[in-house]
Amino acid sequence: MLSKSQIQFIKSLKLKKFREEHQLFIAEGKKLVNELITSTIKVRQIYATSDFFRTTKIDASIERFEIKESELERISSLTSPNEVLAVCEIPTCQLNMDSLKDKLTLVLEDIKDPGNLGTIIRIADWFGIETIICSEQTAELYNPKVIQATMGSVSRVQVYYMDLPAFFNNQSENAGNDNPQKIYGALLEGDNIYTQPLSANGFIVIGNESKGISENLLPCITHKINIPSFSHFNSSGGEAESLNAAVATSIICSEFRRRKF
Amino acid sequence: MLSKSQIQFIKSLKLKKFREEHQLFIAEGKKLVNELITSTIKVRQIYATSDFFRTTKIDASIERFEIKESELERISSLTSPNEVLAVCEIPTCQLNMDSLKDKLTLVLEDIKDPGNLGTIIRIADWFGIETIICSEQTAELYNPKVIQATMGSVSRVQVYYMDLPAFFNNQSENAGNDNPQKIYGALLEGDNIYTQPLSANGFIVIGNESKGISENLLPCITHKINIPSFSHFNSSGGEAESLNAAVATSIICSEFRRRKF
Repeated sequence: MLSKSQIQFIKSLKLKKFREEHQLFIAEGKKLVNELITSTIKVRQIYATSDFFRTTKIDASIERFEIKESELERISSLTSPNEVLAVCEIPTCQLNMDSLKDKLTLVLEDIKDPGNLGTIIRIADWFGIETIICSEQTAELYNPKVIQATMGSVSRVQVYYMDLPAFFNNQSENAGNDNPQKIYGALLEGDNIYTQPLSANGFIVIGNESKGISENLLPCITHKINIPSFSHFNSSGGEAESLNAAVATSIICSEFRRRKF
Repeated sequence: MLSKSQIQFIKSLKLKKFREEHQLFIAEGKKLVNELITSTIKVRQIYATSDFFRTTKIDASIERFEIKESELERISSLTSPNEVLAVCEIPTCQLNMDSLKDKLTLVLEDIKDPGNLGTIIRIADWFGIETIICSEQTAELYNPKVIQATMGSVSRVQVYYMDLPAFFNNQSENAGNDNPQKIYGALLEGDNIYTQPLSANGFIVIGNESKGISENLLPCITHKINIPSFSHFNSSGGEAESLNAAVATSIICSEFRRRKF
């Protein structure tokens, strides 16, 4: 049985303040926890029903607590708790600027919706993008809603938070003048992405859900790209105004990767 | 001031049973309601704060109720209510099979998540797809979560519910043997979408979020397509398992439309 202080401790990790203090985060559900225990993420504790422990092999280094479904419901953030909740250590990673040279990297400016951030991490994983650089105002990676939406991709994609204009200045100094990386920005006034040359490496910048890329970051963009709308095909007369940020990210990543065929 | 019975009536429309009984649905927020009042959707009543009425021109045929913010909070389904709630008539549309002949049409089998359905309707609108055919087990179009996620695209995209195998049989009889429409299905075992010929018309079938396209519908598919994963590029070793259904839909629609350039 869970003690009051255990319940309080787990519940406290729903708040950023306590996640930062303890350097721990929560992941829930059989599929996600199974991905994490076989990844480089260090899982410290597992709270699960007997069903979970019967069907899952767990390293001896992980503290385990067999609990009843009713107890899981008390500590869970989900509307339908699913067998298991894991307490995991927030990994400490150092960004190696050199490692980005030959790669495609996503840059997110102020993506506020946790579901969008989680979905974008899953998209990055699918398209073989290993690193995401986020502005400091982007949703926090270890928010339970982000973690759940990544569906396990959080263990394969590195996410860093930094001041974006400073990052790009630093990056261009690091690359030298000989071989500057291209910085693509998704902008309404950009060129048709389908007909532009797109490089196999560089940065793809996605702006905030309602405001897009800020004035502040705009001077860093070297190539403006746009997903054209086809809604004029519709007989209704009206026009779709925008795409969801995660949807736009997926179309752009798909278009970059398609060029490999 | 709102009467108890008005509040009860509006709240009842959060349930499918009462939406069907009254043939009415709810839409909320300034942007969405503004789109609807200029569309073919018939808005019957508007409940809004004085701010909304001061800034928005409304047809005299619409019943209007000026309410306080606290009253809006009582009737709203949103966590942050935004100036206005509209009660709208569910339109009665009859699908014209002939109208689909030269067009690209989306077909959804058992998309269960209302947010996914709403996002897919918004994607269809962006890519100039006028009609979506849904299986009867797909989330209900007039669920408030679907309506909100469409961001107004619900007024430009026609959504029909029917038995999908029967629909395709009917459709192929209607088209005759001379010019059968292609039926593309998103399947893991499908051919690489980036390198396949794709026609400018036909049907794109998207399966359920976890089960994909059912055994029952599989024989209807004439062309199996797949979005290849690039996650083997990642050094982590693991592999992203799937894309979200709305994300997959957006990549497929983008790829069909790109061929026009």
